Amino acid sequence: MAASPEKKQSAFERIPNVKHVEPAIKTDSAEFEKVVRSRRSTRVYSDAPVPESVVRKCLELALLAPNSSNLQCWEFYWVRDASKKQALVKLCLGQPAAATAQELIVCVARLDTWKRNSKLVLEHLVANQADVPAAKLNYQRKIVPLAYGHGPFYIFGPLKKLLIATLGLFKVVPRGPASKSDMRVWAHKTTALACENLMLAFRAFDFDSCPMEGIDERRVQKLLGLPRSAEVCMVISAGKRSQNGVYDKQFRLNSSLFLHEV
Amino acid sequence: MAASPEKKQSAFERIPNVKHVEPAIKTDSAEFEKVVRSRRSTRVYSDAPVPESVVRKCLELALLAPNSSNLQCWEFYWVRDASKKQALVKLCLGQPAAATAQELIVCVARLDTWKRNSKLVLEHLVANQADVPAAKLNYQRKIVPLAYGHGPFYIFGPLKKLLIATLGLFKVVPRGPASKSDMRVWAHKTTALACENLMLAFRAFDFDSCPMEGIDERRVQKLLGLPRSAEVCMVISAGKRSQNGVYDKQFRLNSSLFLHEV
Repeated sequence: MAASPEKKQSAFERIPNVKHVEPAIKTDSAEFEKVVRSRRSTRVYSDAPVPESVVRKCLELALLAPNSSNLQCWEFYWVRDASKKQALVKLCLGQPAAATAQELIVCVARLDTWKRNSKLVLEHLVANQADVPAAKLNYQRKIVPLAYGHGPFYIFGPLKKLLIATLGLFKVVPRGPASKSDMRVWAHKTTALACENLMLAFRAFDFDSCPMEGIDERRVQKLLGLPRSAEVCMVISAGKRSQNGVYDKQFRLNSSLFLHEV
Repeated sequence: MAASPEKKQSAFERIPNVKHVEPAIKTDSAEFEKVVRSRRSTRVYSDAPVPESVVRKCLELALLAPNSSNLQCWEFYWVRDASKKQALVKLCLGQPAAATAQELIVCVARLDTWKRNSKLVLEHLVANQADVPAAKLNYQRKIVPLAYGHGPFYIFGPLKKLLIATLGLFKVVPRGPASKSDMRVWAHKTTALACENLMLAFRAFDFDSCPMEGIDERRVQKLLGLPRSAEVCMVISAGKRSQNGVYDKQFRLNSSLFLHEV
């Protein structure tokens, strides 16, 4: 096929007319590095409490993580009630990282809140449209329902997948989400970004944390009264590490296994 | 039913005999908060290059994120070759966040490297067993293959799911991963934790970033010569924001939608 003539720019490719100016501020990389390097999964905590204000601040910073199409498909359940907390420890198989924790937060990936959130985000964008690029408004209004909608019980998922795969034979297309599995990946991914903020924030405020998977997620859903579409991404415990609360030196495999320059 | 007699502690519940001592260091929460708050998804970058050393350092910090059973199921492809980079921009639908980026990194969730990595981690633990709790060694040796194994093409997935669901009727059990969908969630979750480190690190080093989903993942796999089991989690672009590179003020819905105290 002959080279096509100069292609018209798509809406995605165009740089919109933007008024907003938000200069980058100067930050301290050494301080950040200290936070990242000293964050260790803490298996045993001391009796030192975590001030309420610290938990609240860390949760607030969690919600500032980037997230998919600003649909904020996350939720955080700070389990404070003593009997619920005790029950949650059991559902974390009684592991010391939960049993000795001062605080336990269940981080939840919601597969079902994007419609509500999209509507609310759109309302905000419309109310502020003088300051929002039209393309962004258009994206929330038109693309989001198409990109994330799959019909009840994901019945349109297979059709969507087939359509995308067929189109994809001929042109560049966004491939997902196109199934329940994709939507699960999508929601957990965004939630995990916030979880990392949360854990780093605890460290930055001089506390420690441990992410826990491999728990009885089904019973955690029941404990919190959550529907099936609210999936437990991880449980994060927090407190101050006890003297031997970090079991061994941090170990990562040789980075050449993971970092590739191409 | 009568209360059961004092239950024997399971291996999970016991606090092991630990020699390692790693005191928490003092960190600067205000500096960390500045990093989190000033990280904005940057849609247009200036021409200022990102020094190689900064990219390398940020990638190094990415690999220090917590991850599931230390199986490090992530990979980062820093696309430096000019023609590959140009091709990748197209697969990101030509969006300015990719087209104007100084650097592009494809963040990949591997569903298939856990066996290799588990073996390598186990070798390390065995070589250092004087300093590693026996329970940790045991976990890597015995639990990991059971927890993450599903047979070729996940054929044992449905059986595993059924078994877990049946056991789960009677007792607390870890529910997953028990299917390919679960393994996808698992791998992307761990990768996203590292992605958040990466984006925050760029900000901490006075650069900006943008996470991109909704791209042609299948073609990205082909471009990088990756198998299907190496799924694109997101593409992260980096550089310095141009004057209008952040399109509008950060907006999050009311936190009462997401933060619950129970």
